[in-house]
Amino acid sequence: MIGIIMGSISDLKVMQGAVDIFEKFGIPYEIEIVSAHRTPQKMVNYAETAAERGLKVIIAGAGGAAHLPGMVASCTILPVIGVPVKSSNSIDGWDSVLSILQMPSGVPVATVALNASTNAGILATQVLATSSPSIALKLMEYKEELKAKVDQMNQELKNSFQ
Amino acid sequence: MIGIIMGSISDLKVMQGAVDIFEKFGIPYEIEIVSAHRTPQKMVNYAETAAERGLKVIIAGAGGAAHLPGMVASCTILPVIGVPVKSSNSIDGWDSVLSILQMPSGVPVATVALNASTNAGILATQVLATSSPSIALKLMEYKEELKAKVDQMNQELKNSFQ
Amino acid sequence: MIGIIMGSISDLKVMQGAVDIFEKFGIPYEIEIVSAHRTPQKMVNYAETAAERGLKVIIAGAGGAAHLPGMVASCTILPVIGVPVKSSNSIDGWDSVLSILQMPSGVPVATVALNASTNAGILATQVLATSSPSIALKLMEYKEELKAKVDQMNQELKNSFQ
Amino acid sequence: MIGIIMGSISDLKVMQGAVDIFEKFGIPYEIEIVSAHRTPQKMVNYAETAAERGLKVIIAGAGGAAHLPGMVASCTILPVIGVPVKSSNSIDGWDSVLSILQMPSGVPVATVALNASTNAGILATQVLATSSPSIALKLMEYKEELKAKVDQMNQELKNSFQ
Amino acid sequence: MIGIIMGSISDLKVMQGAVDIFEKFGIPYEIEIVSAHRTPQKMVNYAETAAERGLKVIIAGAGGAAHLPGMVASCTILPVIGVPVKSSNSIDGWDSVLSILQMPSGVPVATVALNASTNAGILATQVLATSSPSIALKLMEYKEELKAKVDQMNQELKNSFQ
Amino acid sequence: MIGIIMGSISDLKVMQGAVDIFEKFGIPYEIEIVSAHRTPQKMVNYAETAAERGLKVIIAGAGGAAHLPGMVASCTILPVIGVPVKSSNSIDGWDSVLSILQMPSGVPVATVALNASTNAGILATQVLATSSPSIALKLMEYKEELKAKVDQMNQELKNSFQ
Amino acid sequence: MIGIIMGSISDLKVMQGAVDIFEKFGIPYEIEIVSAHRTPQKMVNYAETAAERGLKVIIAGAGGAAHLPGMVASCTILPVIGVPVKSSNSIDGWDSVLSILQMPSGVPVATVALNASTNAGILATQVLATSSPSIALKLMEYKEELKAKVDQMNQELKNSFQ
Amino acid sequence: MIGIIMGSISDLKVMQGAVDIFEKFGIPYEIEIVSAHRTPQKMVNYAETAAERGLKVIIAGAGGAAHLPGMVASCTILPVIGVPVKSSNSIDGWDSVLSILQMPSGVPVATVALNASTNAGILATQVLATSSPSIALKLMEYKEELKAKVDQMNQELKNSFQ
Repeated sequence: MIGIIMGSISDLKVMQGAVDIFEKFGIPYEIEIVSAHRTPQKMVNYAETAAERGLKVIIAGAGGAAHLPGMVASCTILPVIGVPVKSSNSIDGWDSVLSILQMPSGVPVATVALNASTNAGILATQVLATSSPSIALKLMEYKEELKAKVDQMNQELKNSFQ
Repeated sequence: MIGIIMGSISDLKVMQGAVDIFEKFGIPYEIEIVSAHRTPQKMVNYAETAAERGLKVIIAGAGGAAHLPGMVASCTILPVIGVPVKSSNSIDGWDSVLSILQMPSGVPVATVALNASTNAGILATQVLATSSPSIALKLMEYKEELKAKVDQMNQELKNSFQ
Repeated sequence: MIGIIMGSISDLKVMQGAVDIFEKFGIPYEIEIVSAHRTPQKMVNYAETAAERGLKVIIAGAGGAAHLPGMVASCTILPVIGVPVKSSNSIDGWDSVLSILQMPSGVPVATVALNASTNAGILATQVLATSSPSIALKLMEYKEELKAKVDQMNQELKNSFQ
Repeated sequence: MIGIIMGSISDLKVMQGAVDIFEKFGIPYEIEIVSAHRTPQKMVNYAETAAERGLKVIIAGAGGAAHLPGMVASCTILPVIGVPVKSSNSIDGWDSVLSILQMPSGVPVATVALNASTNAGILATQVLATSSPSIALKLMEYKEELKAKVDQMNQELKNSFQ
Repeated sequence: MIGIIMGSISDLKVMQGAVDIFEKFGIPYEIEIVSAHRTPQKMVNYAETAAERGLKVIIAGAGGAAHLPGMVASCTILPVIGVPVKSSNSIDGWDSVLSILQMPSGVPVATVALNASTNAGILATQVLATSSPSIALKLMEYKEELKAKVDQMNQELKNSFQ
Repeated sequence: MIGIIMGSISDLKVMQGAVDIFEKFGIPYEIEIVSAHRTPQKMVNYAETAAERGLKVIIAGAGGAAHLPGMVASCTILPVIGVPVKSSNSIDGWDSVLSILQMPSGVPVATVALNASTNAGILATQVLATSSPSIALKLMEYKEELKAKVDQMNQELKNSFQ
Repeated sequence: MIGIIMGSISDLKVMQGAVDIFEKFGIPYEIEIVSAHRTPQKMVNYAETAAERGLKVIIAGAGGAAHLPGMVASCTILPVIGVPVKSSNSIDGWDSVLSILQMPSGVPVATVALNASTNAGILATQVLATSSPSIALKLMEYKEELKAKVDQMNQELKNSFQ
Repeated sequence: MIGIIMGSISDLKVMQGAVDIFEKFGIPYEIEIVSAHRTPQKMVNYAETAAERGLKVIIAGAGGAAHLPGMVASCTILPVIGVPVKSSNSIDGWDSVLSILQMPSGVPVATVALNASTNAGILATQVLATSSPSIALKLMEYKEELKAKVDQMNQELKNSFQ
């Protein structure tokens, strides 16, 4: 099971991409609002009990001074995937990206691109696939879908240039 | 009393500036290594008990994805002053600055300039001075010293141009 | 009493956040247009007489080459909180942030996030709370409100995923 | 088994951190120079055969226009961890960071901090630990070591302030 | 013949500028969707066979972690012109620019300005003109058109100020 | 007469370039340490009396949150030339540049390049030359010197390639 | 007389601010489209003959790789004021700012803030005022207007808070 | 023949990379100091006569507000390759990169990476190769050398890990 957390319900429209990936691949997930700055103790508890609750990977989305992914990573040995969210008063997203990415030695966060929750979902699935051939198979099919989509776009392009 | 915390002993050479200010002004302080990412529970405890231990202000220095000031601020109502430290693998200090400055609504960190622990010390002293005329007096004298230093540099300049 | 100043009436919609905090907490404040560049002498006077007028903290909002917070800090020993305002011809807010944050040794400005006047208001309140148990109590309640809001958002999230 | 690749032998001094982690944890790894731009076909082959050769995770370090991690990710379903290397003509490391981080939807790279190959090693270990209780145990012990190091630094700090 | 490639049909509205230049100058071109990350093998094949298919120059547009121009350049000796595209989740275009520009020694990409596919078209034409006097003539006429346009704008300006 | 001011004697090694230009062109100047943040009232006085003291142009050098040029400009109608100084804890010079450049409407500062006090000296001379044919003549000769220097470097280059 | 030049008629809406200042102060000006990149020889001629045509100052606005102000400065000894224009495909205005500001030693451009043509107009007027008491008088009155505007905004603010 | 130009002899140590490439490939070149800002008319003449003098491609290196490549491009229809040079007072190279890259529509500069004169040399050679099979052959051999170098580094790596 994958845990998806975010600091505010306003992050949901960005984080939906991860949800969609898990729905698509049939991977169980839980989703929760956990705020590093407003509910620090809940965050610590969430992270400390994550492994025993059966989570394999945690995806945490946050904007601005985005401490949630890194702090969760400090309280668990599960892989934590950080999604920098470009929030309204963000300085162009740089704050979220650097707050999540630049973790000190000893406590990594697997950072994905700005707002890239879909990729966070795929990365979490790739982690599960390292011990599940059936999930690995789904990822291979997904790669084929990506290719097919390019073929289709290419056809569209060719048609528009005839 | 002021609490000075930092994530690593390597930050001490930057944070010494705050210590020097408190020594100069005769303000009691405690100093401690507290790491957001390596000792998260200690950090929460430190922050939650800070007020009852008699601290009035907390100064927290951190580099890279600098979560210490903001996380401490999330666990106390004391004013927290953040010192962005330009650490070795920092991306020019931007990471520390943005991780400390860009806190979400509800949980401020009083951020000072990159490596500016002296200013953190002065700012903490200014906070104490809001309820202590004797400390306020010391700050006024300090402002005079700053002026005197400019006069002295000016004399030096004039001499070198004679 | 808290002093709130800004360089132009156009900054009011950003600075309203601080006003709202003081209204909420019942903290007296004064509000004034003071421009570093258009009314420099008024600014100096404002800052020099702030303490004797009974101000405890000054909040100064400014955009672009934002000199107001730092210059006010140079003329008073009160804590000065700077709010970087993202004005229309700003270079993404970087100019305001750096002009306020990067003060030289001796004259700190407590800088908050871009446009974060609400946090400036809370920080000013935290300063007052260092010598007022009743204000401290209000801040503790405020922290509980922040937590409750997360609970509520979480409920909303859970409902939408049922 | 983990695959560690880099574009040039000059990256080895940065990438050594990952090697050290695997030596410490007793995790088998292979290490190879694979250049996206000088040996593109070797890179494609490396990535396409990685899973069948028994690799579980690939760590790729690269500087400048750092295409190696992303291109490897495009040719495998294994989790790929990217280490941005601050090379000599880099524009302060921004080029490596953004070239690795900002992958398009469908093909994630788990990006760690600038030069943070130690964290890449830990993250790879965390992935293995999702299906290996014995590796998980080692990571828990590692977290204790991190804490102990803080205690030790703290003792050192206290001594220096006596 | 010039090859124009891009990673997604959504890039076409940016890349149209190059098409328009070739239509204007009567230069044959082919256009294709080729994705570095979704169709890596197609990309390698495209680049490796480009010269023998009669291409003289390749124009590649890409956004975000823009690997297409550099990877194509790694598989051909034809000049490759890279167009950084400012895509939707781009960090202000910096990611595309740096991913394309900062190529390692040995494998250049001729980078043009953000979204500047018109200039990519002109640059490709300039390359052809190095061995074609008739194309060179067209470029000289084009330079005259640019001048004439300035004259015309100037007239417009003068009229509006009468 | 030109006024050269700077916030600290440590800025002199950067500001020497302007002095050298005035020595070369035989233009009278005065030089003074004036600190916006440590001697704000002196700064106001300096600026307000500058014109009546016979100054024609003021050159102000400052680093970090560089308020000196802009604040002086707010207190005089003389042209103020700002020299951004890259000081030790500067964030790569961006803070000085933006604090000086991004002045609000109504109060310009003529900003020159980072550390470019030589150019500040030339620009001040150009201002004087607008009403002094003899100074204009010196500037024309200076332009010839610049050209001659290129010729000389070119000769050097040719020799080294023979 | 002041010369106002810009590379394209689309810059006029930004450059209008300078025109308005000269209309307000009754200062004669000429306005012209001169493009560094499309009419280089016209630009050289414009600059070389500027002084003999009676120009005292040149204001040049340009966006992107903004070469117009610096190139004009290379061909005249008149003070050149550069206005960085934030054009449509600009990288947030950074390109214009840096292309204009960072001139090499020997050839200064007096750079004003992004889009700040009003300030360019005021700065040009300040240059003229160095040899014209009547223009100086107008600038002093303008400073009073700026102050009066702050008073008026302040009144407005006070009214809204009653 | 290729023309290599630079604004100052101090750029030669960066630009040597292009020279070395042409020596290696046996491609004739001329080299010259041409300064956009100190010898503007020489620059215009150089560019306008370049084609008739037999040049096929021009490589221009420049730092800071780097106008040389773009201005040369405005005066010739030859392909111009720009090398951003990280000069001493550069703002981390950003100024050179943006001044060269962000050319307006109609006048492209083929920009290579910061200090990447070797790549400028290769790119110029690639342009020549579009009409010269023998040069194309040399470039194919060069690509093989690049591969061989990776093999050799790989061997070195393997040895060090035995």
